[in-house]
Amino acid sequence: MMGHKPVMIKKPFLFTCAAMLAALPLSAQVPAQPEFPAPSEIVAKANVKEWAAIAPSDLLVMDLAPLNGKVRRVVIQLVSAPFSQGWVGNIRKLAAAKWWDGTSINRVQDNYVAQWGDATEKKALPEGLATVPESEYVTEDFVGRPFYSLEGSWRDSYSHDTGFYRGWPIAFGKEGYWPVHCYGMVGVGRNLSPDTGTGAELYTVIGHAPRHLDRNIALVGRVIEGIEHLSSLARGTGALGFYEKEEERVPILSVRLGNEIEGLPAYEYLSTENASFSAYADARANRRDAFFIKPAGGADICNIPVPVRRKAG
Amino acid sequence: MMGHKPVMIKKPFLFTCAAMLAALPLSAQVPAQPEFPAPSEIVAKANVKEWAAIAPSDLLVMDLAPLNGKVRRVVIQLVSAPFSQGWVGNIRKLAAAKWWDGTSINRVQDNYVAQWGDATEKKALPEGLATVPESEYVTEDFVGRPFYSLEGSWRDSYSHDTGFYRGWPIAFGKEGYWPVHCYGMVGVGRNLSPDTGTGAELYTVIGHAPRHLDRNIALVGRVIEGIEHLSSLARGTGALGFYEKEEERVPILSVRLGNEIEGLPAYEYLSTENASFSAYADARANRRDAFFIKPAGGADICNIPVPVRRKAG
Repeated sequence: MMGHKPVMIKKPFLFTCAAMLAALPLSAQVPAQPEFPAPSEIVAKANVKEWAAIAPSDLLVMDLAPLNGKVRRVVIQLVSAPFSQGWVGNIRKLAAAKWWDGTSINRVQDNYVAQWGDATEKKALPEGLATVPESEYVTEDFVGRPFYSLEGSWRDSYSHDTGFYRGWPIAFGKEGYWPVHCYGMVGVGRNLSPDTGTGAELYTVIGHAPRHLDRNIALVGRVIEGIEHLSSLARGTGALGFYEKEEERVPILSVRLGNEIEGLPAYEYLSTENASFSAYADARANRRDAFFIKPAGGADICNIPVPVRRKAG
Repeated sequence: MMGHKPVMIKKPFLFTCAAMLAALPLSAQVPAQPEFPAPSEIVAKANVKEWAAIAPSDLLVMDLAPLNGKVRRVVIQLVSAPFSQGWVGNIRKLAAAKWWDGTSINRVQDNYVAQWGDATEKKALPEGLATVPESEYVTEDFVGRPFYSLEGSWRDSYSHDTGFYRGWPIAFGKEGYWPVHCYGMVGVGRNLSPDTGTGAELYTVIGHAPRHLDRNIALVGRVIEGIEHLSSLARGTGALGFYEKEEERVPILSVRLGNEIEGLPAYEYLSTENASFSAYADARANRRDAFFIKPAGGADICNIPVPVRRKAG
């Protein structure tokens, strides 16, 4: 773990499933790189084939009231199956019903979360929302799915080990697999157990990863653009960072699925099943570019943010 | 590591030194508590003897230009010996020279740092500042010092193991002991190696712990009050989050040592060498209070923030 000894990053491994293997672009070429490139340089040089498109229908676009004349747009990617799909289905219905229009950001707690929804707690929900059981916090059946494991000297305090699945940070243990609370991840507010929330009340992480929330709250996505419009908001002065006065709340103009937004840029993420991601994760754990003198020898999963960008052209 | 199995927290251990042992208040009483108190409840019920005073002369008080008529005050505790004392000495001299008065916050990078100092990079430094070698990033000799170890199932990706020393988050390995980059920690900006910075250019962490900076930059303290005045600032739109326009910079009115500020509250931290801190750390790792259904079974050191408060009365 210590000093200059580099950690060997395993190539992405796949749970045996020939069909999945055949479908994965494992053979994408990695261009030549300087001896000790920075993580950003590795990302910049990744082959275009190593980037995976994010479907517009998997995006949730939240526009906040303008500040200094500019609309504040937050773009959220909804988490991929098999995770949290009951809540994701509810969120699609809430967006279709324009339920969040006219609601607000109501809570900003420093080093923790920014949270939004209906501050009055009286707004009627659309019909047909699912009640999702707590068992859905963890996915038991993961056979045949691609998984980039950070096992070995990458040690996690909260799980057996961690890794990436189609660009998502995941932990696993004897109970199964679950998404983890890294910076920018979006979760579902809820009342006391056995309530699991509907998805109408959402929050995003704006501080150090609150991993104790893993398996206790549903994670439904992550902010891929515009998180600064949430993380730089004034902190609430009430208990848990709730705003105490109505005028402090930040109005939400609209929330729509990405496929309903005209002119929305196309987004893509660096596939976590390719050589450039391996090199990127290794470089995040072992910084050897000019500024650094001691490579760490490891990194926790939330310190390896998956690169997401607007697609060029 | 998994499920409901609680992690056994070891009692604080001390490297053998009878004199140190005799001086430590290991026998402080812990009041009766509910069966599964929340971490905040454990802290609230800690015996007054379990709190340790922070000397005003170990505080750095930075006042930013007022916002909406209110001064924005940031209170920083300077790190305790034996860590980073060369830079801490420089910082005391810079404060005595009122060097930061009229400088500014120049960089705010989301999920990373807020940074301040002389944006012109031309302001003359006071005489007599030390040039501190890189070897000071790590402290080799730690014999006889109290240390609360998070060893065992608390697994760290960046070191052999972690723990607390007089309220500071510390990692250790074969090279020695060093403070770690948790949220709110304050570090010294520098140029390329072998430069280690003087302490005139400072930053604080406002996102997920960037632990890859450990042993690569000097840590000199932590923000104990008012970090929201830095973490909620508008993010800079230039490279690395630097403000692009002069008018975006946030003016620093003054920076003084705490003993020079009239009417400054007294501050204290929950000693990391007492039973209440053990109970608090265990509860942070194994949340069993009403909201939680799955205790994590562990926590990383930066998810166990050491409680600091204004002293009552």
